[in-house]
Amino acid sequence: MQNNVFEWLDFAKRLAVKAGEMIVAARADSTFVRDYKMDHELVTTTDIAVDQYICSNIHTRHPSHCILSEESSPTLDLASVSESTPVWVIDPIDGTVNFAHGHHHVAVSIGLYVGNERILGVVHAPFLEECYWAIKGEGAYCNGKPLLVSGAKEPRNALVATGFPYQKDALLPILERVSRILHHCQDVRRNGSAALDLCWVASGRLDAYFESVKPWDMAAGTLIAEEAGALVGRYLQSSDRWPDVVNGEGLLVSTPGLFEAMLALTNLEK
Amino acid sequence: MQNNVFEWLDFAKRLAVKAGEMIVAARADSTFVRDYKMDHELVTTTDIAVDQYICSNIHTRHPSHCILSEESSPTLDLASVSESTPVWVIDPIDGTVNFAHGHHHVAVSIGLYVGNERILGVVHAPFLEECYWAIKGEGAYCNGKPLLVSGAKEPRNALVATGFPYQKDALLPILERVSRILHHCQDVRRNGSAALDLCWVASGRLDAYFESVKPWDMAAGTLIAEEAGALVGRYLQSSDRWPDVVNGEGLLVSTPGLFEAMLALTNLEK
Repeated sequence: MQNNVFEWLDFAKRLAVKAGEMIVAARADSTFVRDYKMDHELVTTTDIAVDQYICSNIHTRHPSHCILSEESSPTLDLASVSESTPVWVIDPIDGTVNFAHGHHHVAVSIGLYVGNERILGVVHAPFLEECYWAIKGEGAYCNGKPLLVSGAKEPRNALVATGFPYQKDALLPILERVSRILHHCQDVRRNGSAALDLCWVASGRLDAYFESVKPWDMAAGTLIAEEAGALVGRYLQSSDRWPDVVNGEGLLVSTPGLFEAMLALTNLEK
Repeated sequence: MQNNVFEWLDFAKRLAVKAGEMIVAARADSTFVRDYKMDHELVTTTDIAVDQYICSNIHTRHPSHCILSEESSPTLDLASVSESTPVWVIDPIDGTVNFAHGHHHVAVSIGLYVGNERILGVVHAPFLEECYWAIKGEGAYCNGKPLLVSGAKEPRNALVATGFPYQKDALLPILERVSRILHHCQDVRRNGSAALDLCWVASGRLDAYFESVKPWDMAAGTLIAEEAGALVGRYLQSSDRWPDVVNGEGLLVSTPGLFEAMLALTNLEK
């Protein structure tokens, strides 16, 4: 598979960069229409168009692979996928609210896993002109430069990112975690794209990130952070709704020197 | 004074752009040293160098004017300043934590007021290459293009920014406001620069902003937001520590269609 992986990475990078061009053009021309999914989650016609572009290209080139996409196949039954089948995990626009509001923190996320292993991840931020990628065991890069997590060890100096769910009934424990982090760390950032926040942990711009997210939000970014030296764990017991390798429930990703402290702050049972 | 104002604006823009170049160069070369003020607030040698550059230029050109600067004159007794004396209000780097962590949301803020009136404001974001400015009564601009707040009217679709203080003992009511906003609005952003968040309300990237901030964080950005059509008010009764025109205690800045709803959500006595 190893030779294939480098070819797959090149393919995923080309898809992500072209998708980024579509996103930048749609915003420049204001050629997108807003709609809302369940739980009042925003989606635009650009999310759909970019999803179709990415998924149709994967399907044509790799008809035997599976695709789990936020927009077109979020309910795919992954438990029935064979352990040897590569599964592409796609978020055409991670940070749709940011995209629609003219912010810069927006990314295309393309991850690939096989069985119980993350194989590659590409997170491309078109408005920041930053393309992040990683292959399992080969390190993580941004625009060709190797990434390394921060050397932070003191919670008091740590900059920690998180996010908030569209489901308003889930807010109470989340606010308790934010309160704990704010009391013990330097500050919190809420940037609006989980995939890109994970890459920012990889690059040292953030010291840690925690949130319960979906597979398409974290499949690529978690591998990029891991390959840059981050530790990955959970502050919640996860369900079996998703395979462990793409289960973002209670996701905690941190530079190693802060991992135990972040786990203690975000696990409300500790 | 009107002719002077345009000359003062040009002067302030030149200072802000040059200061931005110093900030970008310092980060590119990693030629800055970190230190902590009281309450564990980060300051770098670049904050100090940029402050000295801006303040010395103002002092040389306008020796009769006053300067209130976060870094060099934060305790200036503004009550003793005559009502006809122009007062420059300077934050050399708003978003120092972002600057030190390699983030893009960083700004130089230069405001000017006389008596009880905001006269001009310049907020320059060097990493985003966006220079915002306004003169009282003359509208607000970014890179020469006029700014207009969003037309949002529904809290449920509103994107609201805030910040968190360095003083950890002040967090409880702040978290209560964040909880209310999260329950009723689309989402919260915590970007890390109040001055730039205010400009993003002006540009419609954000629908509202609330936080208790210092004069140097809000003197320029509040005028820019007002001149783009935002309403400015308070969700807290303010003290007389600062003149009203630069008193950022309980600051709420919102697109008009959301102002009353945001006031009801952020004023915990309502």
